[in-house]
Amino acid sequence: MPPLRLHPDRFFPADPGVREIARELFQSVERLPIISPHGHCDPAWFATDAAFADPTDLLITPDHYVLRLVHSAGVPLESLGVARLDDGWRETDRKRIWRRFAEHYHRFAGTPSRLWLDWVFAEVFGLTERLNADTADTYYDAIDASLKTPRLRPRALYDAFRIEVLATTEGALDPLEHHRQMRESGWNGRVIPTFRPDGVLDPEQPNFRRDLIALGEMTGEDTESYRGYIRALETRRAVFKEMGATATDHGHPTAATAELVGARAEALFHAVVHGAFTPAEAERFRAHMLMEMARMSVDDGLVMQLHPGVVRNHDPATLARFGPDKGADIPAATDFVHALRPLLNRFGSDPAFTFVVFTVDETTYSRELAPLAGFYPALRLGAPWWFHDSPEGMSRFREQAMETAGFHNTVGFTDDTRAFLSIPARHDLARRADCARLATMVADHRLEMDEAADLAVDLAWRIAKTAYRL
Amino acid sequence: MPPLRLHPDRFFPADPGVREIARELFQSVERLPIISPHGHCDPAWFATDAAFADPTDLLITPDHYVLRLVHSAGVPLESLGVARLDDGWRETDRKRIWRRFAEHYHRFAGTPSRLWLDWVFAEVFGLTERLNADTADTYYDAIDASLKTPRLRPRALYDAFRIEVLATTEGALDPLEHHRQMRESGWNGRVIPTFRPDGVLDPEQPNFRRDLIALGEMTGEDTESYRGYIRALETRRAVFKEMGATATDHGHPTAATAELVGARAEALFHAVVHGAFTPAEAERFRAHMLMEMARMSVDDGLVMQLHPGVVRNHDPATLARFGPDKGADIPAATDFVHALRPLLNRFGSDPAFTFVVFTVDETTYSRELAPLAGFYPALRLGAPWWFHDSPEGMSRFREQAMETAGFHNTVGFTDDTRAFLSIPARHDLARRADCARLATMVADHRLEMDEAADLAVDLAWRIAKTAYRL
Amino acid sequence: MPPLRLHPDRFFPADPGVREIARELFQSVERLPIISPHGHCDPAWFATDAAFADPTDLLITPDHYVLRLVHSAGVPLESLGVARLDDGWRETDRKRIWRRFAEHYHRFAGTPSRLWLDWVFAEVFGLTERLNADTADTYYDAIDASLKTPRLRPRALYDAFRIEVLATTEGALDPLEHHRQMRESGWNGRVIPTFRPDGVLDPEQPNFRRDLIALGEMTGEDTESYRGYIRALETRRAVFKEMGATATDHGHPTAATAELVGARAEALFHAVVHGAFTPAEAERFRAHMLMEMARMSVDDGLVMQLHPGVVRNHDPATLARFGPDKGADIPAATDFVHALRPLLNRFGSDPAFTFVVFTVDETTYSRELAPLAGFYPALRLGAPWWFHDSPEGMSRFREQAMETAGFHNTVGFTDDTRAFLSIPARHDLARRADCARLATMVADHRLEMDEAADLAVDLAWRIAKTAYRL
Repeated sequence: MPPLRLHPDRFFPADPGVREIARELFQSVERLPIISPHGHCDPAWFATDAAFADPTDLLITPDHYVLRLVHSAGVPLESLGVARLDDGWRETDRKRIWRRFAEHYHRFAGTPSRLWLDWVFAEVFGLTERLNADTADTYYDAIDASLKTPRLRPRALYDAFRIEVLATTEGALDPLEHHRQMRESGWNGRVIPTFRPDGVLDPEQPNFRRDLIALGEMTGEDTESYRGYIRALETRRAVFKEMGATATDHGHPTAATAELVGARAEALFHAVVHGAFTPAEAERFRAHMLMEMARMSVDDGLVMQLHPGVVRNHDPATLARFGPDKGADIPAATDFVHALRPLLNRFGSDPAFTFVVFTVDETTYSRELAPLAGFYPALRLGAPWWFHDSPEGMSRFREQAMETAGFHNTVGFTDDTRAFLSIPARHDLARRADCARLATMVADHRLEMDEAADLAVDLAWRIAKTAYRL
Repeated sequence: MPPLRLHPDRFFPADPGVREIARELFQSVERLPIISPHGHCDPAWFATDAAFADPTDLLITPDHYVLRLVHSAGVPLESLGVARLDDGWRETDRKRIWRRFAEHYHRFAGTPSRLWLDWVFAEVFGLTERLNADTADTYYDAIDASLKTPRLRPRALYDAFRIEVLATTEGALDPLEHHRQMRESGWNGRVIPTFRPDGVLDPEQPNFRRDLIALGEMTGEDTESYRGYIRALETRRAVFKEMGATATDHGHPTAATAELVGARAEALFHAVVHGAFTPAEAERFRAHMLMEMARMSVDDGLVMQLHPGVVRNHDPATLARFGPDKGADIPAATDFVHALRPLLNRFGSDPAFTFVVFTVDETTYSRELAPLAGFYPALRLGAPWWFHDSPEGMSRFREQAMETAGFHNTVGFTDDTRAFLSIPARHDLARRADCARLATMVADHRLEMDEAADLAVDLAWRIAKTAYRL
Repeated sequence: MPPLRLHPDRFFPADPGVREIARELFQSVERLPIISPHGHCDPAWFATDAAFADPTDLLITPDHYVLRLVHSAGVPLESLGVARLDDGWRETDRKRIWRRFAEHYHRFAGTPSRLWLDWVFAEVFGLTERLNADTADTYYDAIDASLKTPRLRPRALYDAFRIEVLATTEGALDPLEHHRQMRESGWNGRVIPTFRPDGVLDPEQPNFRRDLIALGEMTGEDTESYRGYIRALETRRAVFKEMGATATDHGHPTAATAELVGARAEALFHAVVHGAFTPAEAERFRAHMLMEMARMSVDDGLVMQLHPGVVRNHDPATLARFGPDKGADIPAATDFVHALRPLLNRFGSDPAFTFVVFTVDETTYSRELAPLAGFYPALRLGAPWWFHDSPEGMSRFREQAMETAGFHNTVGFTDDTRAFLSIPARHDLARRADCARLATMVADHRLEMDEAADLAVDLAWRIAKTAYRL
């Protein structure tokens, strides 16, 4: 059986001299606590601290990175256990699903999922052989047995992973029940919510009107009036902040922002509330509401995050059968230089404002985002996101954006994951990738060693903590 | 005289450790047979097995890679022997043309043409000094003498090059006479046609109407009716398939695809047949016909290839004087994520369908194509194409697309050439570039050696063979 | 105190074998004279040869690379001594400004400004400790003292820097007084003007009409008639040429070019002269005038340079308070393949024409510019520009454009700076980066050593000299 190995020099440059520098830099950041200011873990895990169900439900079915690649090999999502919206047949035999995944595991060669999963297999479950069709059952049984032990409970893992703070993501209507429960439990972990109001900012969301009414009920505001709507949003932000949130997050189709004067904003609001709007008006409303979110951030101090440029649910058949987040979201060309101009002109130099922008269109790193972040004090570049949080993706980000933006106009690493067990793997990879990059710059005599050592700590820990006001 | 050397370590990484890994990987793929599933060789060569004419007619005048770069130095195409459509003067002294080329050969430093040509000079013709103004005549005479020997006949070279299968490209109206002749000759080489119907799918092609009539005559269908037109295309595909074709190829200005319901498709067909159409209607018709081609591929099993995004004949004066394919085709920004959506939504998950997409807009690797290929089972990424089948181009493709698409959603290497003698040089370069890439991943501990060795064979031979159903 | 070191191997590849090759290549170009065919130094320096004022006025306040990054850290431009248009408060204590800069100097880690400044500190001022808050005052005093010595006078530096020719940039209305003064002084330096007529070609420039009248007065032409306007431009070009200019420069928002026949050009001219034009008409006029500039270049032999694609003054508040060129110019996506087509179709193959195109949209290197330059004889690729004249930026240019364009379709290095003291630092970096690139190609066996040595001299000196007709 081929062995499963996590080489201590993994992701470091091959040149012996540069590798030695990378090793030295990594030593000082390897054991730093994890700051995870943006992600999608389920707060219920930490509130209830219940054991995870089984290997398949934990590691395969909810992971759209895994689903997409196995699907691309011709395996229908039903066969991977994904629930159908019409309650039609799906595979329910966990072990058979795991085997199907294992048979396709060689297809993950060269992908970051492979790196994260191998880390989880080796470090969390102590497995020593590689996953393939032959070892599938051994894997399943070993992982299943581990999951039943106290060591694998969410809170125990939180501690074992040395997490200092973990942000989850919630819609504007989320009652934050699990966060409340956690707080009341006296647990000393820091798991905080993030305010993500897309559902009540985007008129094209399927439940926009229903959610607006719910927002009104929740806040006691008349959300059919523009003023009541704005007040309701401010109220919800205050609740999130009170529960520990330090940031908001916005996943819009584009980065468009717009400044609408009072009466026009109100008129547009009435159009979208009554469902009588064009796609251009929906875009304008979202653009206006991003500006409003920035205004509120200046007031309440919540860091504002924007993740634009993804065509969600590219395949309508998959959406209709399985719902969203199944691996069929695809990036598209995204403009920032014109789109963000209204917002940056108004708030980009405001000392009270922090605005973190992520992109899945890498062409904007050197052309738009780094030049913008190198000028506007409020703007920070988000870490390489989604398809790009891989060794090469991180390397492209550092190579293309740092010379123009400088390291300090970034926010460190963001794991952005719902795969809790992989969080240390992702930070391990990011820290190694950053040390590799810094080591190369030391070897090229572009940086001195003491500067690189400082920057390594900045990128692994310090910048995320200060940028997200943690 | 400076020596001409093909270093055994060429294109491998410089680091001694990584180079050693690359060498080891390359050993196991160096001698594998060549699968060439897409190219532009002349089938007449293999049908008649006649000797090639002379060095200039073989290596310079038909090679648009060579023509363009010498032209960029200020040498008119006439002076390189390119025939004028108006039968005006052109240089006919082969040796003088060869000398002119040799005088500019230093300008090819750093280009892939230089690498391919040097391979041909050294390996096929046994030359040992570098080409320049001083060695021009020696080169000409040596190559000319070689071309007269049986060793240099097309079929002998086919065997010497260890070609397993070689696909050519033919228009829908091509009688496939040479392919028939080859088959009847009892020759054991496998040279197969590819169905490329651009001329009868694109209303903006100069001879569209004339070709439509010819298509009707050839198939006995009424190609002025939409149904007859569709049946005629199906008939021609069947003929190609019967002659060995396993694929179609489509060189459209954009990647647009569209689903038109029956009556609208018919109405649009009538507009384009009668020449009364706008550019937008021409685009819509091409988009619709790509969808039809996909539908037919699902039925007859021919692999569908799409090569969009090239502005053909950027310089009208060159077109008017010399015709197309003289080095003046220029890539343009290309959208795939929206353009391919109709086709992928309808056929992208059909197990009977294989759809290979090439791009000359490298920004789409990580942003659009890799995410799409990592989800839709039918979609495969074509090899780096045209301007990008160079060491750096191949490296960008691997670095930017593999982490998201995985290696198995590609189709291996496609030489795409009309320069027959350079085919082994191109595969040699691709295999070395892939081994270099895999060696780097082994050295970084992202892949184990046994996986890399498997992938090297996949990329050099196995994937092309299965993807193209050979 | 941490030492300030310029390592002799800086910017060379880390691999010992490749580094040795880079060293050898660099030895033969390190001491070559500097050709600076495009930049923004003040000709008054060389005309008067007066001492530079003080460290802050010389190195901080006029350098928009420095201003932007300190501004991005939240420091208002007033605090860096930038003059306000409304004469409001600004910091005038030079030493305090210098300290503020020093406190933020660690933020330049990884940026090219850091590399250039460290070179200036070490090589020009002999400083041996790194700049930071603690060494700020020592730095200020040492630099200030040096500036008072004859060794630091502009003409002495010109000689010490081994500058062979230095081009400055002037508007069409510039009387070229300092160039005349220089010439009459009998100084043996070669500082030549460049004709940059944006102000009188672009109807959207704030002073377009005023400048048109001035142009008429200056040339004795009726610049309210189209013919007079064209003749006036020709006259000014002749004056520039007489004063030593060999090139023009055009900084347009886009690369649009257009061919307008006589009457339509005249009608458009009348519209823009009378201020009654749409943005589309302004764009069309600029496009037409680029074509006219090309026509004039064919006539008078001035090399034509185009720098498109920058959104100037992205932040209107900064513009209103401090004026242009304060670090708030941001690149945008730029099309060349369609935009340049009219101009290249008409003049791109004219042997009398040289057309140098720069880009800040790196996606166009491999997709558009390299394919175009590899075909049209007149077209040359400008060096990586503005945000991209950094180690990584230069590396991307070489890796993405050379395989398709060839080295000889470029123009060598362009420092494009107004920071006179940094000119040798920039050329040093460019020469090292080019030697690093060539060394890698030698180590990969893509180039032989003798070819690389030739190319190193070409890129450092020879090509710039011939391309700019110096």
